[in-house]
Amino acid sequence: MNPKTTILTGDRPTGPLHLGHYVGSLRQRVALQHDYQQFVLVADLQGLTDNGSNPQKIRDNIPEVLADYLAAGIDPDLTTLCLQSALPALAELTMLYMNIVTVARVERNPTVKNEIAQKGFARSLPAGFLVYPISQAADITAFKAEVVPVGDDQLPMIEQTNEIVHKMNSLLPAPVLRHCKAMLSDTSRLPGVDGNAKMSKSLGNTLHLSASEETIHRAVSAMYTDPHHLKVSDPGQIEGNVVFTWLDAFHADKAKVAAMKDHYQQGGLGDRICKNELEACLQELIAPMRERRATYIQDKSQLMEILKKGSERAHEVTQATLKEVKRGLGVPVF
Amino acid sequence: MNPKTTILTGDRPTGPLHLGHYVGSLRQRVALQHDYQQFVLVADLQGLTDNGSNPQKIRDNIPEVLADYLAAGIDPDLTTLCLQSALPALAELTMLYMNIVTVARVERNPTVKNEIAQKGFARSLPAGFLVYPISQAADITAFKAEVVPVGDDQLPMIEQTNEIVHKMNSLLPAPVLRHCKAMLSDTSRLPGVDGNAKMSKSLGNTLHLSASEETIHRAVSAMYTDPHHLKVSDPGQIEGNVVFTWLDAFHADKAKVAAMKDHYQQGGLGDRICKNELEACLQELIAPMRERRATYIQDKSQLMEILKKGSERAHEVTQATLKEVKRGLGVPVF
Repeated sequence: MNPKTTILTGDRPTGPLHLGHYVGSLRQRVALQHDYQQFVLVADLQGLTDNGSNPQKIRDNIPEVLADYLAAGIDPDLTTLCLQSALPALAELTMLYMNIVTVARVERNPTVKNEIAQKGFARSLPAGFLVYPISQAADITAFKAEVVPVGDDQLPMIEQTNEIVHKMNSLLPAPVLRHCKAMLSDTSRLPGVDGNAKMSKSLGNTLHLSASEETIHRAVSAMYTDPHHLKVSDPGQIEGNVVFTWLDAFHADKAKVAAMKDHYQQGGLGDRICKNELEACLQELIAPMRERRATYIQDKSQLMEILKKGSERAHEVTQATLKEVKRGLGVPVF
Repeated sequence: MNPKTTILTGDRPTGPLHLGHYVGSLRQRVALQHDYQQFVLVADLQGLTDNGSNPQKIRDNIPEVLADYLAAGIDPDLTTLCLQSALPALAELTMLYMNIVTVARVERNPTVKNEIAQKGFARSLPAGFLVYPISQAADITAFKAEVVPVGDDQLPMIEQTNEIVHKMNSLLPAPVLRHCKAMLSDTSRLPGVDGNAKMSKSLGNTLHLSASEETIHRAVSAMYTDPHHLKVSDPGQIEGNVVFTWLDAFHADKAKVAAMKDHYQQGGLGDRICKNELEACLQELIAPMRERRATYIQDKSQLMEILKKGSERAHEVTQATLKEVKRGLGVPVF
């Protein structure tokens, strides 16, 4: 029997997860955990790269993210949930990789460039933020992950990781690190309820996995549709209409959604009916997650216990890789 | 009884140590180990920051440097000899500190600026080299060292370390890290035998602790003096005269050296006599070090065993600091 392919994914614990995460990654992880050896990294150190002066935010969100994972159906017996800061091999590999990557190369990384601009760093760029692609390469390679689910904005990170793999392997008597492939989600990014392409807590345009029935109802009621679709009988537009984008993302009956789209574009289908259809499906999706989440979040020490166990397993895996790299470089391993 | 003050010092294992190191640091360490809790760090990771593609150089020089330490009289029962790469807390603290130091700040560090220029990096600057002041701050603070012996070119490193101490402590509920002070050597840098201000293996203008009697003799014979001191009866110059600088550094009888200087400046004292005086004192200094070193270097596994033991002790100390920092930041400690 072939050993399962290893997959690494994770989140920065900067806030509870929302439906954008559910569509973009959580749902996929729940499916993948049966067929892959899956590690999910709670990237607290990476969270600190732009929250260095506000560590409390990161600390407080670790159990929130864990509760989201379990609520979404990630099973800690199938998926290893682990904490970045509990895995010293990741920091140690980062230190080793930093010596074979130039400052010019990380500065040229398009993902980093965009994020630096977005976050309004300039001269105040933390060193940790600049080198985070190297740290991410350490994460991926420490697990010998061959598959990394990412959005297409993260493809330069995979490219940079593979450069490091190539360079580091060339310094070792025999290759130790594995090249990795991006696994691109087949769903495009879920827009916010207000039609904004970016869904975020700070924009208040999202739904969390803990959203109440009432919150879901209000969010869907206020959802951005086609502003020119004034009368039910008018033809409506699908493009940019969040209700239909969300129906595509969440509705199980694709044929029914296709028929609704046709009807809407011809005219005669009201926004209210479409929204009712979406709301029913969101209520059904979120209700069990909300309930499970409420139970999990009540016992934070149990959540941390799960994270501890997973981290112990991840520690073994990542230490093994670190030792191989060190031995290959001739660094003494005591 | 007051606990002893902690001192941290070390070397990059990039080559065997020479008399410049002996005068600038080894001699001092041998004296300090009785009165301080002294840690000497074999900085292999820092050695890799500009030897990332040549790890063999670092690997091969670890036992060489250890043999030099023991030959010079550093006693592993009094001084903890430890290996940087064997102490994950140093990498982990570096990761945490990188988030609170801006790229602009490390780029402004005068020591780093000079070294970048000297080493001819430009666009090829390794990321690890840029951030090495942060890594050095991690080394110093992990041991809670309060005294760090440095050359005056390294003072900006101490300043940067104390900035990190201040900033990190301000993020913690109670201060964990200690501010440190530079201990400047009272001897100025020993010039090379050729009069070059910089003594280095690559310039071939130095003497190693393993130098043979014949090598010492030839080095002193060829030593740069006063090129205008052609006749013994001529007045000679002391400034820039390597023989006198070395006599200052190595001769035990300061009064005798002072008398020789007077005589030389007045005229009537030949270079040969001065060189004989210096050679006698170098032969006496180096002979026992050479012998001890030859014994130590024969048993590299014993050297590594000493390093392993010291690293275990250093691991305890540095892990304790890391845990305090993590707990203060709210990072889970399993």
